[in-house]
Amino acid sequence: MPTDRRSLFAAAGAAATLAALPAGQAAAQAAAADNPSFFRFRVGGLTATVLLDGIAVRQNPGEGFVRNADRATVEASLRAQGLPTGRITNFFCVVALETPRGIVLFDSGTGGQLAPTARGILPAMQAAGLDPARVTTIAMTHFHADHISGLTDAAGTALFPNAEVVVPEAEWAFWNDPATASRSAQAVQNIQRRFAAYQGRVRQVASTAEIAPGIRGVPTPGHTPGHTSFLVTDGPDSLMVLGDVTNRPEINLVNPGWHVIFDMDAALAETSRRRIFDQIAADRIRAVGYHWPFPANGHVLRAGDGYRLVPAEWLPTA
Amino acid sequence: MPTDRRSLFAAAGAAATLAALPAGQAAAQAAAADNPSFFRFRVGGLTATVLLDGIAVRQNPGEGFVRNADRATVEASLRAQGLPTGRITNFFCVVALETPRGIVLFDSGTGGQLAPTARGILPAMQAAGLDPARVTTIAMTHFHADHISGLTDAAGTALFPNAEVVVPEAEWAFWNDPATASRSAQAVQNIQRRFAAYQGRVRQVASTAEIAPGIRGVPTPGHTPGHTSFLVTDGPDSLMVLGDVTNRPEINLVNPGWHVIFDMDAALAETSRRRIFDQIAADRIRAVGYHWPFPANGHVLRAGDGYRLVPAEWLPTA
Repeated sequence: MPTDRRSLFAAAGAAATLAALPAGQAAAQAAAADNPSFFRFRVGGLTATVLLDGIAVRQNPGEGFVRNADRATVEASLRAQGLPTGRITNFFCVVALETPRGIVLFDSGTGGQLAPTARGILPAMQAAGLDPARVTTIAMTHFHADHISGLTDAAGTALFPNAEVVVPEAEWAFWNDPATASRSAQAVQNIQRRFAAYQGRVRQVASTAEIAPGIRGVPTPGHTPGHTSFLVTDGPDSLMVLGDVTNRPEINLVNPGWHVIFDMDAALAETSRRRIFDQIAADRIRAVGYHWPFPANGHVLRAGDGYRLVPAEWLPTA
Repeated sequence: MPTDRRSLFAAAGAAATLAALPAGQAAAQAAAADNPSFFRFRVGGLTATVLLDGIAVRQNPGEGFVRNADRATVEASLRAQGLPTGRITNFFCVVALETPRGIVLFDSGTGGQLAPTARGILPAMQAAGLDPARVTTIAMTHFHADHISGLTDAAGTALFPNAEVVVPEAEWAFWNDPATASRSAQAVQNIQRRFAAYQGRVRQVASTAEIAPGIRGVPTPGHTPGHTSFLVTDGPDSLMVLGDVTNRPEINLVNPGWHVIFDMDAALAETSRRRIFDQIAADRIRAVGYHWPFPANGHVLRAGDGYRLVPAEWLPTA
């Protein structure tokens, strides 16, 4: 456990954030209108918990959300799948994996700082009995704001005082390139501010590295240059933490050739997408998608030119 | 509020059951491995909560579970839908509707007395902040044991001390017919024992009666002779509480012509099933199925000769 001054401040920050939401208040909120925000399942002998950070609603997904499909095509597909065409809900779902060496988080959520409908993962962690101080590793799939902003509170204080942040080296290199800073000043500023709180505790890794026992990177570039998924294996069981390989499954899991506007290199993203879903479908690997409808996990079947998600069942006990 | 001696005993029984699971213990159980067990959504200005009572697992659903489809056909259908063929999980999902006149429950669950994997609805009600003493109406779809056993604890004490039990008159007549008692002694004995705890508080209603403001019966006979669904309407919004019109959607919502062994008059059950799902699909009515995978609700689309469930999204706030 780090004992330098920065870490102490970080610990104080995390404690203050939790203190703002004591168990009693959380229960009272739940009694009002909130739904539960966590879902547990096993990966071999390990317990994974999907944490619902929140949602963001986009109006008229037929207009400009998919670069290479026109409005009528997108809306017809949504209708055929029983979804509305006037709005689409994006979910923010973070995975926490309890391991013998502490909790591994995959991405850090919005920090409750990006949208009023997304509170961050701390309330969900508290409800699930997961103490932020027990997080020892945060593995980042990529550096978009909805994945990294939860590293700190609004004041820039680290929310996970004992965590090392593991970052794909290609992602780090891209966002720390001066050329990127001049093109994407706001995004880079946010990235620098979040990572500053973890100075000396950021570990760059190769895209296929084993970042912790049983957890290795699976390169899925395209959404961003260094976008990386992570495969968790315990015994015969495994889980693929996809990150943003797709947006909602009804968009570009069903239609893997559709290029959503957030993919920086859409053609490369499509190649990565098809490759990893072919593997997941063939090997029947359970997968979790950051923007999939909570609880955001299940199995994937091949279906025509694309794929179909079979959502996991919500069992009473993990 | 009733004040006779029976009701006092009933209240004491409910309190004792809850006392066995204080908030702290519930939280500790959750911290171990349990998943949350309730899900809220709005029906107009009302709040509905789906309560997960538990599950029961059946081995080899291809063998004898569907009367009029052979093993290969059933297993091929399950495989095509991404489900295993070796086992199928049945869920027990009770709906609680908060109304200005108290909570209306639709069915009462297993009472935690039928399977070790089904704890009954009291833990879910406590987690959702729903006090059993606030239940004023329990509307029964039918009298199978997994729907009525939750009326009382194992000792036969009423768990809902202030509730009236609303029963379809055809269902009541069938199970109180001496001919039924001689054919189905065990089922009838269980029914008599559960309802005895509510003596003087059982109201028989016609199959299309408005049982409470905005809640009316929809006859769906076949699963049992008096099986009744309930349509909740508030303003332009509505919810169909199906009961056992289907088993799991992957079985006889997708294949409405399949006759599951639990349907007493399978042909009549199929007629009821097709009629109500044609209505639900045409009018885009949200529906909740007692045995559907939790949270057990969504919209239904026509698909070929059958239907397809579009599960509701798990939103952070109802």
